[in-house]
Amino acid sequence: MEAVRNRIANRVLGPGDRLPSVRGFAATMGVSPSTVVEAYDRLEAEGIVRARRGSGFYVTGADLPPMALAEMGPPRERNVDPFWVSRQSLDADASVLKPGCGWLPADWMPNAALRRGLRALGRADDTVLSDYAGTRGSPALRRLLLGRFADEGLPATADQILLTASGTQAIDLICRLLLRPGDTVLVDDPCYFNFQALLRAHQVRIVGIPFTPSGPDASAFEQALVVEKPRLYITNSALHNPTGASLSPQVAHRVLSAATTHGLTIVEDDIFADFEPASSPRLAILDGLNRVIRVGSFSKTLSAAVRCGYIAARPDWIEGLVDLQVATSFGGPSPVATELIASVLAGGGYRKHMDEVRHRLARARKDAIDRLRPLGITPWIIPRGGFYLWCRLPDGQDSTVLAQRCMDENVVLAPGNVFSISQSAASFLRFNAAQLNDPRVFSVVREAMART
Amino acid sequence: MEAVRNRIANRVLGPGDRLPSVRGFAATMGVSPSTVVEAYDRLEAEGIVRARRGSGFYVTGADLPPMALAEMGPPRERNVDPFWVSRQSLDADASVLKPGCGWLPADWMPNAALRRGLRALGRADDTVLSDYAGTRGSPALRRLLLGRFADEGLPATADQILLTASGTQAIDLICRLLLRPGDTVLVDDPCYFNFQALLRAHQVRIVGIPFTPSGPDASAFEQALVVEKPRLYITNSALHNPTGASLSPQVAHRVLSAATTHGLTIVEDDIFADFEPASSPRLAILDGLNRVIRVGSFSKTLSAAVRCGYIAARPDWIEGLVDLQVATSFGGPSPVATELIASVLAGGGYRKHMDEVRHRLARARKDAIDRLRPLGITPWIIPRGGFYLWCRLPDGQDSTVLAQRCMDENVVLAPGNVFSISQSAASFLRFNAAQLNDPRVFSVVREAMART
Repeated sequence: MEAVRNRIANRVLGPGDRLPSVRGFAATMGVSPSTVVEAYDRLEAEGIVRARRGSGFYVTGADLPPMALAEMGPPRERNVDPFWVSRQSLDADASVLKPGCGWLPADWMPNAALRRGLRALGRADDTVLSDYAGTRGSPALRRLLLGRFADEGLPATADQILLTASGTQAIDLICRLLLRPGDTVLVDDPCYFNFQALLRAHQVRIVGIPFTPSGPDASAFEQALVVEKPRLYITNSALHNPTGASLSPQVAHRVLSAATTHGLTIVEDDIFADFEPASSPRLAILDGLNRVIRVGSFSKTLSAAVRCGYIAARPDWIEGLVDLQVATSFGGPSPVATELIASVLAGGGYRKHMDEVRHRLARARKDAIDRLRPLGITPWIIPRGGFYLWCRLPDGQDSTVLAQRCMDENVVLAPGNVFSISQSAASFLRFNAAQLNDPRVFSVVREAMART
Repeated sequence: MEAVRNRIANRVLGPGDRLPSVRGFAATMGVSPSTVVEAYDRLEAEGIVRARRGSGFYVTGADLPPMALAEMGPPRERNVDPFWVSRQSLDADASVLKPGCGWLPADWMPNAALRRGLRALGRADDTVLSDYAGTRGSPALRRLLLGRFADEGLPATADQILLTASGTQAIDLICRLLLRPGDTVLVDDPCYFNFQALLRAHQVRIVGIPFTPSGPDASAFEQALVVEKPRLYITNSALHNPTGASLSPQVAHRVLSAATTHGLTIVEDDIFADFEPASSPRLAILDGLNRVIRVGSFSKTLSAAVRCGYIAARPDWIEGLVDLQVATSFGGPSPVATELIASVLAGGGYRKHMDEVRHRLARARKDAIDRLRPLGITPWIIPRGGFYLWCRLPDGQDSTVLAQRCMDENVVLAPGNVFSISQSAASFLRFNAAQLNDPRVFSVVREAMART
């Protein structure tokens, strides 16, 4: 029964299709024909198939199951599902502590500038308040981005930028443009858990590349291009999620060279760029936006409530992405959002805000390391910026078990295996240094570890 | 060469796969082996395949083409592409007249209420300004929607509503949940052109049902369920786009009965609901949100700049949609957008605004009909509400040709065949009665017709 159900779920058998003959299916499954007859009869009782006299069993189509992302990947314990951390964090009420979440507390954000921007919007033209945006999004914000790219040494033109509803949606659109079900995609191991969730929705095969303190293991990467023939590689080069590591110039060059040789496209998710004290190597800059696509957003540095992301890529790809965004969302981000972001970025205050955030985060990372060490929890590396600390637990501790126990105490942790395709990070936790100011986090974690 | 390229484009052949043998492929294609050898050699010269001595030709994977939506459907003239109207309308500058577009002019929208809402947002909590929303979106806005559903006689619970980034994105998420490439989907013929664009992105087969002044042709619908075995039907029941027709009670009952018999799911896009003078039959209400999914947004009545849509459906489907929205957009609409919409809806002004819009539209529809008739352009039906007029051209006029000529004069029309799967609407145009106040529209159309 399970085998037939799976074939229906995977669309191997569609409505109206005949099931395999009893004799043939018994041979395939290595069971007796009477077992197959019994299974087919039960499926008929459930309305999933229908017998036609003398002609066999047919799929009714009454029970095609919906896409359940949580069931699509390899089986996992429920709490290391890639959705666990996001859903627990996003839906947590104010009493829940979130040292595992992926964003700054609201009071770290440039709220005064946002309030000024909202007041200015209240005086904007009617068209800004109630009309659709153009298909590529606010020209003012795209110009601001082009200026920032030029400052980094990345020349680009207006037809190489598309604004999107979020950074995640930017990657989703790229997957829609470039991937088909069954394609292979490389990610870092560990990598941001939502890359896995997103790729499952595209029904592609995910292959992990071991991650080192200077980027992906270049030899493993080169070998995977030969063996796995991937279509895409998705990565964070700067302040990698979850490790906080940044790409070295040597690894950047090897990765891009191998990608060029094998015709691989790379998505570089640059969402943590503004947290860097000084710029580290970027694949998009080395490559000049040829086979590397840059993705970014303002959710981590400016506001997660004002949804907006962007894609910088080859003009012909941007043209295809515009069509896809019209088809699937009827355009990109809200003009209200893009006006608000442009007003904050254009004001001189944003640079000052980020200077302050970087200093505050440097202190927070140091404090966090000092308070975790007495618990036997040690950072894998000391990141040069950002809020993530990828930490190893004392011997014998399992981060999944720990996360479950701490959730019972209203503390959301980010257990290592939600980030790991190979499920080899059970002894790691990702901490957010900006979300550790309540001492209860440390006592809850200590007590949870003591129960092992 | 074309045949091999197509197999690569459709992922029938993937990187590393061997091409069919020369002899076998020659037989398949009905050409001589030397023709196949020549084609394979040229493909090798282009780097698309590589020969291995004594072993045949293999796909290199260097040239997997991106998803080009404009090429995916049946071939069409460029200007009756389903993207033509949206892209011309969305990217038009202020000098362009848009009698073919699908929205109200900005000065018809409740801009004063939006300005008040923005000022109030400037005084909101930091969390509203800079934090992510919960995964289902603003509880206040969902409660408002539930109250409106209850007023219509549609009881629903909080776990049956999900807020999305737009109405289009709502349908896209549903397609992701329920469809797989190759599935069949029914639409009305004619239907909203972006349904076709969206469904192309999902790589499904689209089947059109002839549309009548009281809804889809019920006999054709029933027959299609038997013959085509569709997975989904997408429609507008009230003030259908492009015709302005509304579903009759008899057709509603027949459609829902047939859907129930055949296990079909229906998406009812209710985006024009608030334009109706009095409520017409709804499949979602008859069905009680069992196999019918309701979709809506605020873009047509409140603001297209404040992006937000919603889905009302069975709780288990909503749960799956929440995961999909987290995976592909990291959540739904901006909390800034949902707060703003909730503030406008909760204020008593919205009901008054819609009363005024309905009266103004009734006058605009009458004026438009009076001004089109002298040109020989006549409405297919007189709609009971909304801004669309589906009009027949005089004999011998082709709306596609007309739309091209008028575009040269900076007037965007909506030619019939962009709405028609069967391409049988060449003599129709969709006019937007609210976008016809400039008399230049009529003179440009008259002159374009005179050139035939």
